[in-house]
Amino acid sequence: MIVLGIDPGTANTGYGVVRRGRTLAALDGGVITTSSSAAPEARLTEIHARVSELITEHRPDAVALEDLYFGQNVRSAFAVGQARGVVMLAAGQHGLPCSSYTPQQVKGAVCGSGRAAKDQVTRMVQSLLRLPEPPRPDHAADALAVAICHANRAPLLAAVRGAAA
Amino acid sequence: MIVLGIDPGTANTGYGVVRRGRTLAALDGGVITTSSSAAPEARLTEIHARVSELITEHRPDAVALEDLYFGQNVRSAFAVGQARGVVMLAAGQHGLPCSSYTPQQVKGAVCGSGRAAKDQVTRMVQSLLRLPEPPRPDHAADALAVAICHANRAPLLAAVRGAAA
Repeated sequence: MIVLGIDPGTANTGYGVVRRGRTLAALDGGVITTSSSAAPEARLTEIHARVSELITEHRPDAVALEDLYFGQNVRSAFAVGQARGVVMLAAGQHGLPCSSYTPQQVKGAVCGSGRAAKDQVTRMVQSLLRLPEPPRPDHAADALAVAICHANRAPLLAAVRGAAA
Repeated sequence: MIVLGIDPGTANTGYGVVRRGRTLAALDGGVITTSSSAAPEARLTEIHARVSELITEHRPDAVALEDLYFGQNVRSAFAVGQARGVVMLAAGQHGLPCSSYTPQQVKGAVCGSGRAAKDQVTRMVQSLLRLPEPPRPDHAADALAVAICHANRAPLLAAVRGAAA
């Protein structure tokens, strides 16, 4: 399965594409950056267009997003929510399921502990994806981490659902 | 000028279309309702599609949104932000400018006081738009109110900008 991981934000939206076969592999990763001098609706249009392109290019089976509730105020939550909305829309328009994971879930899936430090997550992402260097910048590393989180949990969730059916 | 006013929400997104000539007139109004049993990305896809249809049908000059910061927690702000995001995207994809107004600004523009009660706003919307009955439901009334707010402020803002240029 191929997973598109997204760390959404108006200024910087990180993305990471991970394929899970017998092992994990990174297919793509980077950051969609929008100009603070552009109108919010133009920035959201840019994010939506770029995420749609990534979906068309890599044909993922699912989209996984980081779900950051803590350490935010209501105003920043609105702004992040707007960016999340257009990413989820791009997924919905392509018929792809979206899953959201808290930072604790992502850290737990990648490092085995929900309290792992940021550089520990980056090193584990590098190791799991066999990258020659630690993924940079942070938004791309976070997006790869949430993609790994979903890729590792999805087979388990499918098995649980199958057993319950 | 024609203004599309939106009161965004995942479950209920109110809309109201107002034309300002010598007087104000309501062209359309209602609520986009999505099913709580649908996945969030499917609900956002529905909202985006319906708002895009309204833009194609009424060809507004601007989109005005209610900007509700207060009385919300971070979790609800994320959800409202997601709905706002896809509405702003629909505007951006049609090259339309988006403006956001707080409830206080909307009440001030419609009733002359930022502390007006909800039923007072509804009655003033009815009166200003010469509607036979008070607009219903509340989300549609709120959307018409934010459209009136923008329609009444936009000529003033353009004049101020013209004088400053």
